[in-house]
Amino acid sequence: MNYNQIFDQAIDRLHSEGRYRVFIDILRNKGQYPNARCFHGHNGPKPITVWCSNDYLAMGQHPKVIEAMEEALHDVGAGSGGTRNIGGNTHYHVELERELAELHGKQAALLFTSGYVSNDATLSTIAKLLPGCVIFSDELNHASMIAGIRNSGCEKRVFRHNDLDHLEQLLAAEDPETPKLIAFESVYSMDGDVAPIHAICDLAEKYNALTYIDEVHAVGMYGKTGGGISQRDDAADRIDIIEGTLGKAFGVMGGYIAADQKIVDCIRSYAPGFIFTTSLSPALVAGVLAAVKHLKSSSEERDAQQHNAAMLKAKLGDAGLPVMASETHIVPLMVGDPVRAKKISDILLAEYGAYVQPINYPTVPRGTERLRFTPGPAHTEEMMDELAEALVEIWDRLDLELRKAA
Amino acid sequence: MNYNQIFDQAIDRLHSEGRYRVFIDILRNKGQYPNARCFHGHNGPKPITVWCSNDYLAMGQHPKVIEAMEEALHDVGAGSGGTRNIGGNTHYHVELERELAELHGKQAALLFTSGYVSNDATLSTIAKLLPGCVIFSDELNHASMIAGIRNSGCEKRVFRHNDLDHLEQLLAAEDPETPKLIAFESVYSMDGDVAPIHAICDLAEKYNALTYIDEVHAVGMYGKTGGGISQRDDAADRIDIIEGTLGKAFGVMGGYIAADQKIVDCIRSYAPGFIFTTSLSPALVAGVLAAVKHLKSSSEERDAQQHNAAMLKAKLGDAGLPVMASETHIVPLMVGDPVRAKKISDILLAEYGAYVQPINYPTVPRGTERLRFTPGPAHTEEMMDELAEALVEIWDRLDLELRKAA
Ligand SMILES: Cc1ncc(COP(=O)(O)O)c(C=O)c1O
Ligand SMILES: Cc1ncc(COP(=O)(O)O)c(C=O)c1O
Repeated sequence: MNYNQIFDQAIDRLHSEGRYRVFIDILRNKGQYPNARCFHGHNGPKPITVWCSNDYLAMGQHPKVIEAMEEALHDVGAGSGGTRNIGGNTHYHVELERELAELHGKQAALLFTSGYVSNDATLSTIAKLLPGCVIFSDELNHASMIAGIRNSGCEKRVFRHNDLDHLEQLLAAEDPETPKLIAFESVYSMDGDVAPIHAICDLAEKYNALTYIDEVHAVGMYGKTGGGISQRDDAADRIDIIEGTLGKAFGVMGGYIAADQKIVDCIRSYAPGFIFTTSLSPALVAGVLAAVKHLKSSSEERDAQQHNAAMLKAKLGDAGLPVMASETHIVPLMVGDPVRAKKISDILLAEYGAYVQPINYPTVPRGTERLRFTPGPAHTEEMMDELAEALVEIWDRLDLELRKAA
Repeated sequence: MNYNQIFDQAIDRLHSEGRYRVFIDILRNKGQYPNARCFHGHNGPKPITVWCSNDYLAMGQHPKVIEAMEEALHDVGAGSGGTRNIGGNTHYHVELERELAELHGKQAALLFTSGYVSNDATLSTIAKLLPGCVIFSDELNHASMIAGIRNSGCEKRVFRHNDLDHLEQLLAAEDPETPKLIAFESVYSMDGDVAPIHAICDLAEKYNALTYIDEVHAVGMYGKTGGGISQRDDAADRIDIIEGTLGKAFGVMGGYIAADQKIVDCIRSYAPGFIFTTSLSPALVAGVLAAVKHLKSSSEERDAQQHNAAMLKAKLGDAGLPVMASETHIVPLMVGDPVRAKKISDILLAEYGAYVQPINYPTVPRGTERLRFTPGPAHTEEMMDELAEALVEIWDRLDLELRKAA
C-alpha cells in the first residue's frame, strides 16, 4: 500500500489529459473593473482585462456595497463567531433572509455559506425528509445539485437537458404515491440556455412533484426586481424551492433558498450543512443586503450587461468565430479540445492581457471544452473589438477554422 | 402523497422533544466585546454579555484584522467573482495558503469556504482517491467529518472516543494491504478534552494508515505560534492532513487543510466542494492573513483566554455547579435534559443579560444536554462572579442540585 504513488498517479492522469489546472493569480482593481493585475508568470503585477468574472454586474465594486460592508465591520467586527444557533445569528442575517424571501415572493428564506452548500444541504435534506423520494434531475445540473442528490441517498432519474417528453416519461413511470422532486436550473451557465419553467411546473402539478430551481446565474439579473427567470416568467409561485447565490450578480459570497415557511424550517432544523458551520460573516451579509436592495430598484446594471453581452456575441459571430447560440448574458466560444482551449487562453493572457479561463471537463462534457466570456456593464466596445481581433489572430495562428463572415 | 403534512410532522417532532431551535438575534458591539445587543423578544435592542462565542480570542474585533479587511475592500472589492479556477484566485488566497502551510510546517495548504466544507470535501475526496479505503473515525467526530466520511462511500469503523485499544483492535482486523485513514479531532469542542496525537500516530505507523486531524478548536490557540495541539505536542509532521477553520480563533470565516504538496494538489484537482464554488471573499482572506500573522507572534490573547477559562471553571466549581472536567479552554456545565438546558439559558438571557446557548442533540448525545461557556480574553472577573451567582440562583429556582462546595 503506497499512498504517495496513488496520489502521484491521480495527478499524472490530469496532466496526460491536458486538464491539470493552474490558477491564475490576480487582483481586481476596485473602481476600474474589469481591469485587474495579474501576478502569474511575470515580474511584478501586469495589468489585464477580466473577461470571465461571475460578478456579472460588478456589484462587488459598487460603492453602496463597499460602504455597507465597512459599516458592518466597524459596528460588529469580522466574523460572526458562531453557528446560526450558537451565537452566530446576527440581525443582518435576519434582515437579509426577510429581504430574499420578499424578492422571490416566498414566506421565508435561509442563508448558507455558499450556493454550493445551499444546493448540497437542501437537496440532501429535503429528500431525506421524504422517505422513498425519487429525484428527477436535468442532465446538465450543476455539480452542487448532483452532490446534494447523491448525498440524499435517494433514487435519481436523469432527464435529458430541458427535454419535457423525457421528463414526463420518467415521472409517469413512478407510482403516483411516491414522493417526487424535480431539480433543475433556470439559466444553464455554460451554454446560456434557459429552462421552460412553466412547462416543468405543469408536469410537476400533473404528477404531484415538488419543484426545486437553481437560479444562481439569474438572481439579480432577470426579472423586474432581480428575482430571476422565475420572476421574469411570472412562475415563482409555482416553484416550491428557489435557490440562489450571493456571490455572482450580488457580488459578495454566500447562498440561500426561498420557500414556504415550513420547508425552510425543516431545512433549518435538519440540514447538517446549515447547522454545523460558522454563519456568514456579518460584513458579507451587510454587503449583500445593499446589493439586493439596490438591484431591486435599479435596472441600469441589468440593462447594460444585456446590451454588452449581445454586442460581444454579435462581434464574435461577425468575425466568424464559433460563438454558441445563447439566449442569455453568457457568451460561450466552442473549442472542443482541452489542450487548445488552454492554449488560446494562455496566449490571450500573455500577449493580449485578456483573461478568460478555459472551461474543461468536469465543468463541461469532454469534447465541448470552450472559452466562456461574461462581459459586464463596464466592458467597452473598444475592449470587445480588441478581443475579437485578438481571437481571430489566434484562431489563424493555431490553424483553427473561422466561419465565413455573414 | 401530502408533502405539507410530512414537513409539519418533522417540525412537530422537534417541538415535542423540546429541541426546536429559536435563533437569538444579536449584534456584537465592536471594540466592546463581549458586550452585544439582543433584538430578541424585546422592544428595541438590549445590552447583553456573550458567553458562547467561538471567536475565542476576539480576533474578529482586532484592529489589525478590521484594517486589513477594509484595505482589501478598497483595493479589490467585495466578492472574488469566481471559483478558484475561473477568475476567483486572488493574490490574497495564494498568500494565505502559503502562510497556513508554514504555520503547520507543511508543504502546502488549501482554502475552502468553511471548516465544514474543508472536512466534507477533503474526507470524501481523499477516500475516493484510495479505492477500498477504510476510514477509522472517533465516535465524537464533528458532523462535518461524519458527512465527509459518509459521502466518500467508504467503509467506516467507529472507535470509542480516544480509545487507543479499540482503535488498534479495529486497525488490526483489516488486511494490511487495505488503504486506511484515521480521522479524529485534537480538541473536542463540547467536552474540551484532547486526543492522544502521538499514540494515534504510532498506531497509524504500525498499521500503515494515513492520519487526518481536525484542529478547528485549537488553531490559533495552542502551540507556540498558534499551530494547534499538533504544534504544541510537536506532532504536526506525523499527521498527513491537518484541517482548521478561519472562523473561530482567527475570527473571520472559511476553512483549510495543510498537507504534502501532492495531497493538496489531489484535493484541489478532484474535490467538487472545492472546485465548483465561488472562492472566499478577498476581504475575508485579507482579514485572516492579518489574524494568523498576529497570532504567530503574539501569545497575549492565548494566555489571557487560558487564564480566564481556568478562572471561570474554578468559580463555577467552587459554587457547586456541575462544571465538567476539561483540559482546555472550553467550560461545559452539564444539565442532562434539553428542556431544562433551554430554560436556564432563557432565564440567563431575559433576567441577567447573559447569553449562552443550550447545547442539545444532535450537537451532543441525548441526555448530555449542557451549557457551554467560552470566556475570552476580555471577560472580566466581575462578569464571572455575576454569572456564577446568577447560575446558583437559577439552579436553586429550578430545584437542581448543587454539589457540596469543596
Ligand atoms: C448553477 C450553479 N449552482 C450553484 C453554484 C454554486 O454557487 P456558489 O459559487 O455560491 O457556491 C454555481 C457556481 O459556482 C453554479 O454555477
Ligand atoms: C470540530 C469542528 N470541525 C469543523 C467545524 C466547522 O467549521 P466551520 O464553522 O468553519 O464550518 C466545527 C464547527 O463549526 C467544529 O466544531
